[in-house]
Amino acid sequence: MRRAWAGLAAAAALVLALAASLWRRRPRPVREVLFFPSQPICTEALLAEAEGPGAVSRPCRCPLPRGDCALSRLLRRLLAARRSLELCLFAFSSPQLARAVQLLHRRGVRVRVVTDAQSMAMKGSQIGLLRHAGIQVRHDQESGYMHHKFAIVDGRMLMTGSLNWTTQAIQNNRENVMVVEDDEYVKAFLDEFERIWEEYNPRNYRFFPKDSK
Amino acid sequence: MRRAWAGLAAAAALVLALAASLWRRRPRPVREVLFFPSQPICTEALLAEAEGPGAVSRPCRCPLPRGDCALSRLLRRLLAARRSLELCLFAFSSPQLARAVQLLHRRGVRVRVVTDAQSMAMKGSQIGLLRHAGIQVRHDQESGYMHHKFAIVDGRMLMTGSLNWTTQAIQNNRENVMVVEDDEYVKAFLDEFERIWEEYNPRNYRFFPKDSK
Repeated sequence: MRRAWAGLAAAAALVLALAASLWRRRPRPVREVLFFPSQPICTEALLAEAEGPGAVSRPCRCPLPRGDCALSRLLRRLLAARRSLELCLFAFSSPQLARAVQLLHRRGVRVRVVTDAQSMAMKGSQIGLLRHAGIQVRHDQESGYMHHKFAIVDGRMLMTGSLNWTTQAIQNNRENVMVVEDDEYVKAFLDEFERIWEEYNPRNYRFFPKDSK
Repeated sequence: MRRAWAGLAAAAALVLALAASLWRRRPRPVREVLFFPSQPICTEALLAEAEGPGAVSRPCRCPLPRGDCALSRLLRRLLAARRSLELCLFAFSSPQLARAVQLLHRRGVRVRVVTDAQSMAMKGSQIGLLRHAGIQVRHDQESGYMHHKFAIVDGRMLMTGSLNWTTQAIQNNRENVMVVEDDEYVKAFLDEFERIWEEYNPRNYRFFPKDSK
């Protein structure tokens, strides 16, 4: 009987040790909400650091304060991408966010962008620059807006909310971005992205209005 | 020894029964994503039913199809409110959603609305109607937009995303609304609502431009 109890205790200890090891290995999923407006800060150091050790780093002389804010936290989450980045954005004119996206593309991350045709044509849009850098961009040809504002990092982290990626929105508006590391929500948005990506395939573009003679 | 085993088995059964009962009592938290555009459907039956047994119910003769869609699911989540509803919306011009909010107000739900001053002044806005019905509304006086689009039902369910509550957005745009029943996220948005609600207190309103003579 004593031997049976000892066996049972050893088995229980093993199960506990295994559970503790799994617990350690799986960091708590990210759950965060970023609220805007974000105070204007200098993001030069953050972006230069992300360029990697080969990049020339020069201290920025701009008068903006350094520190942490909603924009720098959004940038950090984005720059954590290692494999893939899906962007589904109504408007994209923030130079800092565009620089981060180009940097990821250069680093070998597979970047795909879906955007709205009307917004893309507006002054200050960064979409042309992204395309010029070789990033795949697709846009709608619908009368309604492609009004989503979400990003998916490495197929595992979703950032979504009210924020268009514009300096106006970042610095002046009341906005939110939820950061969600949750398979169920991520899958729903990734499926939506793939649906739209396929629908906006350039082979479906009409280059002349349907009714033109 | 046999008695000890029997005691242990009884204790285990008790724990299991208790766990099962707790499991039954706590329904799985709602986790849903609604994607738009939503096909136009008739919401008359859904809204009339929510008016309660005292309301006169007449079958709607409109030609729109009946059925389930993103809008009807959003309406149902909203109409589930029993105690409180916080709305923080850039634009609100959907007649169906406005009717649901008025209905909740009449039912005794404490409704508070925060919105954007510029958007509120636009044609088709339902904000005037809500105010006329006695619902508390506060708005910004900032140069930036109050661009949030979220609702909190009974302090426990958050609905947030890219969707402005307009017929244009509901029927024509690519949009998303996350439905989240999660204390941590709900608290973050509720805190943001209370911050804005206090900042937009009418005693802080300026009724003349600062620089006017």
